[in-house]
Amino acid sequence: MRAAVVDAVLAELSSGGYDALTVEQVATRSGVHKATLYRRWGGVDGLVAEALAHSAEAEWAIPDTGSLADDLRAVTHAVLVGFTDPAYGGAATALISAALRSTQGAQALASFFATRLHDAAAVVTRAVERGELPAGVDAVEVIRTATAPLYFRLFITGEPLDKAIADRAAAAALAATEAGVFTA
Amino acid sequence: MRAAVVDAVLAELSSGGYDALTVEQVATRSGVHKATLYRRWGGVDGLVAEALAHSAEAEWAIPDTGSLADDLRAVTHAVLVGFTDPAYGGAATALISAALRSTQGAQALASFFATRLHDAAAVVTRAVERGELPAGVDAVEVIRTATAPLYFRLFITGEPLDKAIADRAAAAALAATEAGVFTA
Repeated sequence: MRAAVVDAVLAELSSGGYDALTVEQVATRSGVHKATLYRRWGGVDGLVAEALAHSAEAEWAIPDTGSLADDLRAVTHAVLVGFTDPAYGGAATALISAALRSTQGAQALASFFATRLHDAAAVVTRAVERGELPAGVDAVEVIRTATAPLYFRLFITGEPLDKAIADRAAAAALAATEAGVFTA
Repeated sequence: MRAAVVDAVLAELSSGGYDALTVEQVATRSGVHKATLYRRWGGVDGLVAEALAHSAEAEWAIPDTGSLADDLRAVTHAVLVGFTDPAYGGAATALISAALRSTQGAQALASFFATRLHDAAAVVTRAVERGELPAGVDAVEVIRTATAPLYFRLFITGEPLDKAIADRAAAAALAATEAGVFTA
């Protein structure tokens, strides 16, 4: 049932955004009774939080190219593709935007990004293990720095985003990391 | 009248947030008739956009210490203080959060940040003029990189922010700039 409801929420958000999201439409699309949706998730904002929690659990391929530079580029490309490729971008972007507009969204957003940042930080930890970086580097902060300029554009300023910008964000985080900025 | 309305919007947002903002309360607090507010700004979202446009025009002291490192630190500190100091932070943070939740907010946010980033980019332009950096550096991207991790925390993940984090974000942008990441 949960998967059907999450799929319905994503489909509704992709087509109409947060303003158009209603429990009625999620019920119709998912085949789950409206009363069940209200009882279990409370309403639209609870459904958005559930969809975001589900997305945070989704597996994604953490890059492991053997080079921190290439791995960081792969991480920023994953953000770029995940949020802007027409094949994936609509639902993911609509979901984050909806959570930003929802009264219950803050906690769901915090959890979603904590999971994503922690997962991606593996590329930094591996670089330490390979001896590319000294121990003591703040792996999550490296990923935050590489990806924050992309999220800033996507969800705050609405500025366009492309591969060159994603590459540059990865290169900036790498340069700062190599300069020791994130090492205690 | 505009100043009274903007002050009233900021005061209402500071005390109750976007969910509690009503044209009625802005009318009461500003002394401007409700019908006038509706006619000129259309409603709550138009009032939020107006307050954000007004904030973008507000003068702020662009740092000019003679050193790019110190200037970038001053820029990230200005973001930190502006959005987290109890004396200023409530209204500014509530305003950006409201715009993120408003259907008309996207354009207002784009304009606000375009103005802020452009203003702050003067610290990079001056570093080029002093010979600290080569010509051809993307000054706005340097500022975007320095400040995006702060905005990401403030408005997307809700993670805490302090002076050490602001310092580190400035240091990361400086290291990337000096490594030539933002130079064409």
